Amino acid sequence: MPLSPPAIDGARLLADLHRLRAFGAYRTGVHRPTFSPVDMEARHWLAGRMREAGLAVEIDGIGNVIGRASGDGPRLLLGSHIETQPQAGWLDGALGVIIGLEIARALGGGVDVAAWADEEGHYGSFLGSRSFIGDVTEADIDAARNRYDGIPLREALAAAGLAGRPRAAVEPGRYLGYLEAHIEQGDELEAKGLRIGVVTSIVGIWQYRVTFEGQQNHAGTTRMAIRRDAGAALVRLAAAIERDFPGICDPRSVWTVGRITLDPGAASIIPGGAEMLFQFRDADPEVLARLERRLQELVADANAGPCRAVLHTISRSIPKVMEPRFQDALEGAATRLAPALHQRMPSGAGHDAQQLARVMPAGMLFVPSIGGISHHWSEDTAEPDIVLGCQVMAHAVADLLDAG
Amino acid sequence: MPLSPPAIDGARLLADLHRLRAFGAYRTGVHRPTFSPVDMEARHWLAGRMREAGLAVEIDGIGNVIGRASGDGPRLLLGSHIETQPQAGWLDGALGVIIGLEIARALGGGVDVAAWADEEGHYGSFLGSRSFIGDVTEADIDAARNRYDGIPLREALAAAGLAGRPRAAVEPGRYLGYLEAHIEQGDELEAKGLRIGVVTSIVGIWQYRVTFEGQQNHAGTTRMAIRRDAGAALVRLAAAIERDFPGICDPRSVWTVGRITLDPGAASIIPGGAEMLFQFRDADPEVLARLERRLQELVADANAGPCRAVLHTISRSIPKVMEPRFQDALEGAATRLAPALHQRMPSGAGHDAQQLARVMPAGMLFVPSIGGISHHWSEDTAEPDIVLGCQVMAHAVADLLDAG
Repeated sequence: MPLSPPAIDGARLLADLHRLRAFGAYRTGVHRPTFSPVDMEARHWLAGRMREAGLAVEIDGIGNVIGRASGDGPRLLLGSHIETQPQAGWLDGALGVIIGLEIARALGGGVDVAAWADEEGHYGSFLGSRSFIGDVTEADIDAARNRYDGIPLREALAAAGLAGRPRAAVEPGRYLGYLEAHIEQGDELEAKGLRIGVVTSIVGIWQYRVTFEGQQNHAGTTRMAIRRDAGAALVRLAAAIERDFPGICDPRSVWTVGRITLDPGAASIIPGGAEMLFQFRDADPEVLARLERRLQELVADANAGPCRAVLHTISRSIPKVMEPRFQDALEGAATRLAPALHQRMPSGAGHDAQQLARVMPAGMLFVPSIGGISHHWSEDTAEPDIVLGCQVMAHAVADLLDAG
Repeated sequence: MPLSPPAIDGARLLADLHRLRAFGAYRTGVHRPTFSPVDMEARHWLAGRMREAGLAVEIDGIGNVIGRASGDGPRLLLGSHIETQPQAGWLDGALGVIIGLEIARALGGGVDVAAWADEEGHYGSFLGSRSFIGDVTEADIDAARNRYDGIPLREALAAAGLAGRPRAAVEPGRYLGYLEAHIEQGDELEAKGLRIGVVTSIVGIWQYRVTFEGQQNHAGTTRMAIRRDAGAALVRLAAAIERDFPGICDPRSVWTVGRITLDPGAASIIPGGAEMLFQFRDADPEVLARLERRLQELVADANAGPCRAVLHTISRSIPKVMEPRFQDALEGAATRLAPALHQRMPSGAGHDAQQLARVMPAGMLFVPSIGGISHHWSEDTAEPDIVLGCQVMAHAVADLLDAG
């Protein structure tokens, strides 16, 4: 198939991705926390590249980098994010921003490009894209702190030179919709030998903290029979989840105990307190509700033991369905450029697209992740897959703009 | 029964215990870490009380406070420790030291008293009593650091005013043996309505670190089937221990998972690493060996899963049998002063007596712990039980000195 329309420049795309990778390079990955000096350097570099592409660029009061095309006519918004998880990969986020930039360059109009600040949640949850759709108040910003070092968001914004800048807001009617390219971050495409994923929906993520209260005591002198060991109660709940969830989940459901803390955490002291962070994800609200019911039952069972267990809900995000017309456009382009090497699939990760989808039609395209690895410095995607992903997205964008 | 011989002064004993409790008071307990300013204040106060009792006092180069009686004849060494665990109880250690002091006062000779430094292991393991028996080198001291804040032991000794002081060493032939009074730290005496425990042996403590290596990955996009979740592997091992140990242990065996760490410990990241601290205790070397064999088998089983599990041995202490003649003396005194309210029993906790037992005969006496609670600020013992414990120990000391 010819690459035109539109003629994207694969070498230019890859060169920009590798340049961006150098900001905060860590082994073969990147360490670029939101609003760190190196993150701000990267945002200013990106703004410069957008300007060279003929876009009118703004870095707004929450750190979003937005490049707007001049001219009238139908318009699409393309984007993702550029900060990273700690010691993480070079493509998670960066790929979608630079693909957006390349398509804006290739089409010469009709495409705005955005790098949403803090998708990775150093200070909050989807701060930049939620600010853009009007879902972040000044009070939210006052209250937010860095999850790793506790620095207030206000202080970080001031240090980044962003204090007092206005925050950009979505202009009603400006866009046909939003499109985001992203690495899959799983191994499904690779395992099936496919090169393109057309995202059907973004899963809901339900997150919990479970706390256990027992009795701290001496680990040598307290008989097993009278112990109220909060750590042992936690292990029993975690084991019960592993026993029960496989029987009631959907094939694509996932669940994770991400953190366990025992208090006081010493070799010779029976833990008097314990806490675990637990989450599960699925694209089906009924499956999410079923998993939560079982979790509630297991916590109730735990309370029949010697320790008190309490289930605290942290968040429950609703699965977001991607615009069918955008899915069709992406699939159509994939069929032309990579026949039989694509599939429709849900996204197991959260993305800025789920926020934009609250105010406009949205779609997403995945490229394969080598070994399914992400949120780790060794994350990678084959360069031909990156270029193909950009080509498919560019064709879909051109088709959607043509259709108007 | 008459209290004499010897005439201990219960009010004086309790007054000294309550005075010592005021150094680092925390709620109804005490926070007095080894070599902290308040711990050193307490050591100097104790040295003063020993001098008032007619003992020749030394605070040695490792912080041991040793009071020596003048005169010839048979001699016993009585002691324990005075520093505490963090935010812990007022009697763990302090009881044995002040009972020793009271008996030295009551007998007026034949009794040396020691407060061994750092039994609670802020910087090491039984530093003071091991130094006294010649089991701590200068290189050990150079290498030791505070387990909570990492401060080098050398620095702490200098700040405490102990740098350059000689370390006291056991004088061969000076003692018939060593005796230590201590709170039980368990609930066995209380549960049986008893008031005195005669210790038969101090259990062996076998401690391990188990590390798990998996693959850090994204908690949303990585299918359950391909995960190498180090935290899940840890939970499986901990649950298998809970399943198997009850079937192969002795009635008094205890085991504890004191700490669990998942790496990196974030809600949306599959742990790539995990670690647990695990220990078990028993008075029987064969039981200890049997529990270790099962632990080794379970770790081997874990290695059949997707993560690599490694068992690191931290320490394996050998159970120490208490001198039968000392047990008889303590039981004889208990039979006179608290008929049918005493029993022989092993100690589930480690004590300085197990170090002294390596170079001389040793014995221990327990008084009940209310609710079996220890290593917590709410630790307590009824005052009549404290006084009775001192009386029993004093009678046994007098009998042993008489026998020579």
